[in-house]
Amino acid sequence: MSAQNPVFIPGPTNMPESIRKACDIPTMDHRSAAFPPLFERAKSGVRKVIGMTEGEVILFPASGTGGWEAAITNTLSPGDKVLAAKHGMFSLKWVDLCQRHGLDVQVVARPWGEGAPVETFAEILAADSAHEIKAVLVTHNETATGVTSDVAAVRAALDAAGHPALLMVDGVSSIASIDFRMTEWGVDLAVTGSQKGFMLPVGLAIVGVSPKALAAMEGARLSRCFFDFRDMIKLGTPYTPAVGLMNGLGFACDMLLEEGLENVFARHHRIAEGVRRAVAAWGLTPCAATPQLYSDTVTAIVLPEGVDGNALVRHAAKSYDVAFGAGLGEVAGKVFRIGHLGMMTDVMALAGIATAEMAMADMGVPVALGSGVAAAQDYYRNNKPAQVRAAA
Amino acid sequence: MSAQNPVFIPGPTNMPESIRKACDIPTMDHRSAAFPPLFERAKSGVRKVIGMTEGEVILFPASGTGGWEAAITNTLSPGDKVLAAKHGMFSLKWVDLCQRHGLDVQVVARPWGEGAPVETFAEILAADSAHEIKAVLVTHNETATGVTSDVAAVRAALDAAGHPALLMVDGVSSIASIDFRMTEWGVDLAVTGSQKGFMLPVGLAIVGVSPKALAAMEGARLSRCFFDFRDMIKLGTPYTPAVGLMNGLGFACDMLLEEGLENVFARHHRIAEGVRRAVAAWGLTPCAATPQLYSDTVTAIVLPEGVDGNALVRHAAKSYDVAFGAGLGEVAGKVFRIGHLGMMTDVMALAGIATAEMAMADMGVPVALGSGVAAAQDYYRNNKPAQVRAAA
Amino acid sequence: MSAQNPVFIPGPTNMPESIRKACDIPTMDHRSAAFPPLFERAKSGVRKVIGMTEGEVILFPASGTGGWEAAITNTLSPGDKVLAAKHGMFSLKWVDLCQRHGLDVQVVARPWGEGAPVETFAEILAADSAHEIKAVLVTHNETATGVTSDVAAVRAALDAAGHPALLMVDGVSSIASIDFRMTEWGVDLAVTGSQKGFMLPVGLAIVGVSPKALAAMEGARLSRCFFDFRDMIKLGTPYTPAVGLMNGLGFACDMLLEEGLENVFARHHRIAEGVRRAVAAWGLTPCAATPQLYSDTVTAIVLPEGVDGNALVRHAAKSYDVAFGAGLGEVAGKVFRIGHLGMMTDVMALAGIATAEMAMADMGVPVALGSGVAAAQDYYRNNKPAQVRAAA
Amino acid sequence: MSAQNPVFIPGPTNMPESIRKACDIPTMDHRSAAFPPLFERAKSGVRKVIGMTEGEVILFPASGTGGWEAAITNTLSPGDKVLAAKHGMFSLKWVDLCQRHGLDVQVVARPWGEGAPVETFAEILAADSAHEIKAVLVTHNETATGVTSDVAAVRAALDAAGHPALLMVDGVSSIASIDFRMTEWGVDLAVTGSQKGFMLPVGLAIVGVSPKALAAMEGARLSRCFFDFRDMIKLGTPYTPAVGLMNGLGFACDMLLEEGLENVFARHHRIAEGVRRAVAAWGLTPCAATPQLYSDTVTAIVLPEGVDGNALVRHAAKSYDVAFGAGLGEVAGKVFRIGHLGMMTDVMALAGIATAEMAMADMGVPVALGSGVAAAQDYYRNNKPAQVRAAA
Repeated sequence: MSAQNPVFIPGPTNMPESIRKACDIPTMDHRSAAFPPLFERAKSGVRKVIGMTEGEVILFPASGTGGWEAAITNTLSPGDKVLAAKHGMFSLKWVDLCQRHGLDVQVVARPWGEGAPVETFAEILAADSAHEIKAVLVTHNETATGVTSDVAAVRAALDAAGHPALLMVDGVSSIASIDFRMTEWGVDLAVTGSQKGFMLPVGLAIVGVSPKALAAMEGARLSRCFFDFRDMIKLGTPYTPAVGLMNGLGFACDMLLEEGLENVFARHHRIAEGVRRAVAAWGLTPCAATPQLYSDTVTAIVLPEGVDGNALVRHAAKSYDVAFGAGLGEVAGKVFRIGHLGMMTDVMALAGIATAEMAMADMGVPVALGSGVAAAQDYYRNNKPAQVRAAA
Repeated sequence: MSAQNPVFIPGPTNMPESIRKACDIPTMDHRSAAFPPLFERAKSGVRKVIGMTEGEVILFPASGTGGWEAAITNTLSPGDKVLAAKHGMFSLKWVDLCQRHGLDVQVVARPWGEGAPVETFAEILAADSAHEIKAVLVTHNETATGVTSDVAAVRAALDAAGHPALLMVDGVSSIASIDFRMTEWGVDLAVTGSQKGFMLPVGLAIVGVSPKALAAMEGARLSRCFFDFRDMIKLGTPYTPAVGLMNGLGFACDMLLEEGLENVFARHHRIAEGVRRAVAAWGLTPCAATPQLYSDTVTAIVLPEGVDGNALVRHAAKSYDVAFGAGLGEVAGKVFRIGHLGMMTDVMALAGIATAEMAMADMGVPVALGSGVAAAQDYYRNNKPAQVRAAA
Repeated sequence: MSAQNPVFIPGPTNMPESIRKACDIPTMDHRSAAFPPLFERAKSGVRKVIGMTEGEVILFPASGTGGWEAAITNTLSPGDKVLAAKHGMFSLKWVDLCQRHGLDVQVVARPWGEGAPVETFAEILAADSAHEIKAVLVTHNETATGVTSDVAAVRAALDAAGHPALLMVDGVSSIASIDFRMTEWGVDLAVTGSQKGFMLPVGLAIVGVSPKALAAMEGARLSRCFFDFRDMIKLGTPYTPAVGLMNGLGFACDMLLEEGLENVFARHHRIAEGVRRAVAAWGLTPCAATPQLYSDTVTAIVLPEGVDGNALVRHAAKSYDVAFGAGLGEVAGKVFRIGHLGMMTDVMALAGIATAEMAMADMGVPVALGSGVAAAQDYYRNNKPAQVRAAA
Repeated sequence: MSAQNPVFIPGPTNMPESIRKACDIPTMDHRSAAFPPLFERAKSGVRKVIGMTEGEVILFPASGTGGWEAAITNTLSPGDKVLAAKHGMFSLKWVDLCQRHGLDVQVVARPWGEGAPVETFAEILAADSAHEIKAVLVTHNETATGVTSDVAAVRAALDAAGHPALLMVDGVSSIASIDFRMTEWGVDLAVTGSQKGFMLPVGLAIVGVSPKALAAMEGARLSRCFFDFRDMIKLGTPYTPAVGLMNGLGFACDMLLEEGLENVFARHHRIAEGVRRAVAAWGLTPCAATPQLYSDTVTAIVLPEGVDGNALVRHAAKSYDVAFGAGLGEVAGKVFRIGHLGMMTDVMALAGIATAEMAMADMGVPVALGSGVAAAQDYYRNNKPAQVRAAA
């Protein structure tokens, strides 16, 4: 009776009815004349949403992790040096993936809760006069800690050093919810998945590829076939594509663009700010080290000593049928996470905040019931969007 | 982006995904062998849900109003005297329907917020030694005021008077959410629709008919054809039935029976009590005159003088994309209503309460943000169901 | 594994995926600002599809039979004389409905397979100088026999006689598939349902009402409440409307209008003609008495003596999971029917013809396998539409 | 108006309504307690459908090509020698994939239309006394030519030679439609996708892994991360899984098992045989070299000289809105293909045959309209299944 409660995990996100319908279509022959317009609509929509004015969009029937793999295997060669940071579970996993593919990863370790180490990156890049570093990896939004890093600043560091390394960005939990500007920021490989800001089911790895990355593709010697950009570019769909999801992706992009990207980002910011007001009202703090790092898609909340965040998440699921995100890796047990990306409204966020309060109270966290809700309500009602959006 | 906020109107209710899927089926030939089991499952399910151990269930492709019409036109004759009360919009409308069909309605007027006038009915029935009254009409749950009346007491009054009148009950906003016992209470005609406790789309008028009502059917001289019980009983589907809705109805009954009717009623009571705690925390009162009358499916809340309930409802829709019920008839403008029947969870109810608080604050009602939420949270977390239900 | 075979019953019809999605929507508050545009779109679409340039469209949550009842109860008074014909099951049922409501029906009986008796009607109307006849009832398309009658000719007969009777037309199995011109033909009440040419699930009775019929409404003394036009006109939705179906209706009208009504009618004619070519190739004949009467929405096929059409239909369902229409009433057992209205393609029709051949062969009808298919194929491939329509 | 025609491509296949509904579910937290049973149901169902009594089922959010890649990268090392044949587009592509990953592929070239060269394989394996060959690759069903190879015979050749090479089988267009016995046949890696016999949308690569293949996994040095079996086995879902498709997969397996695998295979054989009868009636021949090779999931039909199969397929799509498979690679233009796997009924097959006849006639192929249909009808009506299946 309760599968209709929204989820508050930081992806897969709640999906609008209309997007689900656009995905759930009868079998279409992808070799028929009906497919190319559908395919182009999806790719063209992605280009606009991620701010690409050049390069290619490539869609794999895979998840975001496949997008990471595609980004490196199509542009790098065994033993290539890449620069990356570890400051959360997803930045860590990307490093691991690079290592498994035989890359030489120079890892800058940072406390979880910090962002990408722009200054350290800048120093390393400046010192790399031989340009041994072939790529710099940035996790735009660390889903594990609720931290948004400054991609443009990493680009600036590359430019300041006159460094030719490719800039690869994991935008899985940022793109389509948080401002992202592929071409303006000089991102060479932008990776995301269908199940976050695009509000689709899992099943598409979405990769934006800059002209510079396309040039690197020809010389890249890491082995790949399923994830080979070349086949994708030459053949479009070298094997059976996920037609339904592509149709949904085109629809979702149109929906986002109709709302207006600025409005989409503002909506996520407004909803996130309400959640943060609630956190403050509870007397708790986000995992993110500074307000500049606060993510508008997910808030990881540090629990008092002695309260097990994982148990809290299990309790909320069991007692209230509501899914929050557990802590991962270094912050496992120490935090719990409220995802507020994708399809989310003020009203849904309030439901999540109210449920978190009950669950925390049940687990012995000294929060006043209604306190976080009141703080969020106060913020939401005083920060209504200029134009309340039409129902989708 | 916001059509996924739940509705808090007192019907049509939020619909579980699984029920929607059971309704949305490809065309089935209702004259094929596949139809009778589907049809029987629906009728058999209804029998259990409304507590019938004898008589017939009849399903019309219509709405609850059609069920009212069917109840009277199949059992009464022009000029027949019926006894009814007016204490809300729906009791009033049923009286009007009777009058339009040429019945002689003895109306007991009561203040809106009161229940069915059992004592007055008892007096009238006792005095009607000639048994001129052919039927007594009771609105089990007055959706306009959030008042649940005592059907069993009306039966007791009939029995005490040894009166043979038919007992007709409008159970539109009670059945499948509030305890209802057709055979035990001696109800002769129980009327409901698909879009309330059964959590289906609009489109089925559901009528339980006792053996006594079936006997009255043969002599009834009010004209009817579309709503004729006789064709329905003889032919099953004298014209094209709403096969999808019937399939959904069977599914919904199975879902309710699997949860257990006692658990279903307890769930609605628990959710409703949370809403009432919120109302009290706001310093407001329900429209229902006494706690004994409080409805577990809808709460009508009296607003302070000077606040227009209809404007409040419009504001909540416009600013928060949330639908509440406006006041109707005598209480138009004076109340607003929170529907909490059908598919509803604690978490959804908290979202509705939180939204009501914001909307009231916006309209100048002096409520403390979070106060109602806190009261409801306190109640919900201390009154969890014995067994949290599995997701549907 | 086989619920995806199309149905070949003359309604409910196969439903396009897109229309089903338009019907299956989350609960919408019909008192919110979102509803009126949805409602207007549906009514405006119907006006165009049925060729109304004046009068009102009224939508009931009911089936076509309810539409018949609404048409008469809103415009006539007890004892009023109406003129009608019996030449099939549905014309017969409408007569029965009138009689149950106390009308004095002058019935012209005709052999099943004949159309509306225009000449006899003309004579009767001319002779009725006192204008005792208040309404003339015409079944535009007799679904039981596959006969389309000439509504314009009945109008001409009325005009020739200078007779003021209302012209009521059952367009249940014609409207939206066969040319229908309400205002041009001077139809006063046009009745249909959602589950035929509009390709929706059962659940809407759709009634077009002319200004003359609206004028008659005020004086009509047949009792009605659920079906009362006055409430519908005054309040729009006097009780809970079937919002999902209305949304689907608006969508379906737009789809039909985008295809172009002439193209829709031509498509049905083309598909029907293919079916008729098959019937001829089988050495069988339609039930319809003359080619002028052939219906473009359903073909009733006369079987050789000794072959039971009802058994044939059961056999096709059991052995091939395909639904055809059985014979009804006077032609029960003598015919079987292939419905080809609503959502239908050449390819689907060929599947139906091929299945009918197998079923007939199984039942001992001496048809050559493939013969009817070949005749239909020959017709279809030589009569392709000017522009093959885009997939829906 | 025509997206409801079935497709006759050899995958993605037509999807039953019920499976689509099982895939299209609201967002579920895959880290919640609700997920493991869903996951286990899917894997357990696959084990039964592919005849595994030992080893592991691994599900990737990818397509069948990803399954091929997973099979080799998890069990082989750079430079390893593998034995494979080229006798169609898909066997050819798998060879190409191996080569791109740095394997040394010993390719046995065979004419397209032939099956896996069992005797040549046997000779090569017998001669490979040093056991340099690490794996033998077999395409169970060559989708491009409609050829089913004898997997058990390849196992016998391995056994006869006492050869330890892994037996890898591409079962993409055979599994769940044609008899497949993983453990009995000693298959070490069985690869398929969701969009063929399982009747789901594209999006799952499904891999059966034998204990022997699992043992090989640890020493395999081909790089992999997204497709790493080890993570899958250790973590279950190392990254976000395609929950909806997994739910659909479990449902589809249950549906297949309820029908009975023998009945499923018999159904595909019966439908395929009807198509082949049609081909013979047209005076044409399958691409498959001998009847022993005829595939029960797809029939590639050789067209007369001068008729372009690709143009034929485009014409059928444009004129009749029906999708057939075009010829690929060496047989491009020379054949067209009728896919008859997955969700398919006799009636649907007849629609495809009838459309193929019209399209061929339009393109100048001298086929008698109705001739193929008649041959298939004759076969179908004389070979009805013992028990006609219930609708799904």
